[in-house]
Amino acid sequence: MMAQLGARVWVVPGGHIPFGGSGPEPEFTGFEQLCVLNTGDSEAELALFFYYADTEPVGPYPLVVGARRIRHVRVNDLIDPEAVRLDRPYGCVLRSPVPVVVQFLRQDTRIPGTVALTGTMAHPAD
Amino acid sequence: MMAQLGARVWVVPGGHIPFGGSGPEPEFTGFEQLCVLNTGDSEAELALFFYYADTEPVGPYPLVVGARRIRHVRVNDLIDPEAVRLDRPYGCVLRSPVPVVVQFLRQDTRIPGTVALTGTMAHPAD
Amino acid sequence: MMAQLGARVWVVPGGHIPFGGSGPEPEFTGFEQLCVLNTGDSEAELALFFYYADTEPVGPYPLVVGARRIRHVRVNDLIDPEAVRLDRPYGCVLRSPVPVVVQFLRQDTRIPGTVALTGTMAHPAD
Amino acid sequence: MMAQLGARVWVVPGGHIPFGGSGPEPEFTGFEQLCVLNTGDSEAELALFFYYADTEPVGPYPLVVGARRIRHVRVNDLIDPEAVRLDRPYGCVLRSPVPVVVQFLRQDTRIPGTVALTGTMAHPAD
Repeated sequence: MMAQLGARVWVVPGGHIPFGGSGPEPEFTGFEQLCVLNTGDSEAELALFFYYADTEPVGPYPLVVGARRIRHVRVNDLIDPEAVRLDRPYGCVLRSPVPVVVQFLRQDTRIPGTVALTGTMAHPAD
Repeated sequence: MMAQLGARVWVVPGGHIPFGGSGPEPEFTGFEQLCVLNTGDSEAELALFFYYADTEPVGPYPLVVGARRIRHVRVNDLIDPEAVRLDRPYGCVLRSPVPVVVQFLRQDTRIPGTVALTGTMAHPAD
Repeated sequence: MMAQLGARVWVVPGGHIPFGGSGPEPEFTGFEQLCVLNTGDSEAELALFFYYADTEPVGPYPLVVGARRIRHVRVNDLIDPEAVRLDRPYGCVLRSPVPVVVQFLRQDTRIPGTVALTGTMAHPAD
Repeated sequence: MMAQLGARVWVVPGGHIPFGGSGPEPEFTGFEQLCVLNTGDSEAELALFFYYADTEPVGPYPLVVGARRIRHVRVNDLIDPEAVRLDRPYGCVLRSPVPVVVQFLRQDTRIPGTVALTGTMAHPAD
């Protein structure tokens, strides 16, 4: 049995889904991804909150990560309570009842025939 | 009500705004960005200090981030007390009276028709 | 004599080896890499565990890093107990009996004549 | 007066200076960079140690960062006690008598007409 690893709160301040992508979907669209690893033996029911520059935060967005599982979710697939719009700067707070680890990735394909990537571990804020 | 998350001091040692960009502004200019998330219920009045290789640091640059808001600021938009010049290596210290989280991003478009991205969470130094 | 630096458990949630690369091998294939530094005076016999979205974790994968040595391993070179498949999202936990430091890198060459890179320090989870 | 920020020991496990670059020097050569910020009021005389896969570590490499200054150094400019060779995987430990903060950057221009960037904060290992 593997111990639960990580933290219960993670923060990503620098979200911004590129507007406009090129190349075949879904591999070459522009997107941002939150990658969660739950090493524990119980399911993790995360609550995500999105923060914006000019309005109140929106959430919770539910995100379930099974016991001993990863889940890589594209931010633009999060639509309930409302879609996270392209080309709109955001920040994200992820809260989990059990420890998890969170990594952030952006793929930018705005220029046809090119891919740019950037990412970072999210900030653990327990 | 969401707790205040993060730290009061953040450090980015590796700043360097690319000189010369290509493509339509403002999306495809070269830039560096500081992305701040303030989850707390009071406004955060940050003070930024820029460090250089060959002269004394410059600051404070004021940066206000509203309660429960993000702010993504391009470093080359910071002009008071003095503009942060392109193509000049710098480091940045961000101080906040309340906890925030800070992420750093560089977009490099010096070569026409290409975009390169890199970024990292800033270093929390409380 | 140099002290042992780092942590005994490291986590990378956002693994995904790009499927399809371009250019001469091995420099320009797409790959992901785990880079381990062991500053201590005894060999580090790491055990790696890979987590997936839809099945139980697989491991341990043994990885030996000599005393006062680095080891940069491509994830697709890990084949025992089973190969880590291309284009399949994964997370990785690295466990070491002695402190080490772990960095993660992705090289994406899916588009001919281009290279995209992204990386981050792994998350220390002791 | 600004407090000293950061840590006294920093680790970068994943160094590897790209072999072969394209475009005008020095902006478009391939390189790796260590970016150090010393916020304190005394000079920081760092000692760098380079670790390899197949031989004993080499160092110390001296690196002086003035009080309240940054220093961005290209790894291939470090030649004493011996040059850090291109295309050879390495790790780096930076030791400072006073707290500093360290960020790592790679620029890869092996493919003519392209730039790829990746970077991360170094790991603080005090």
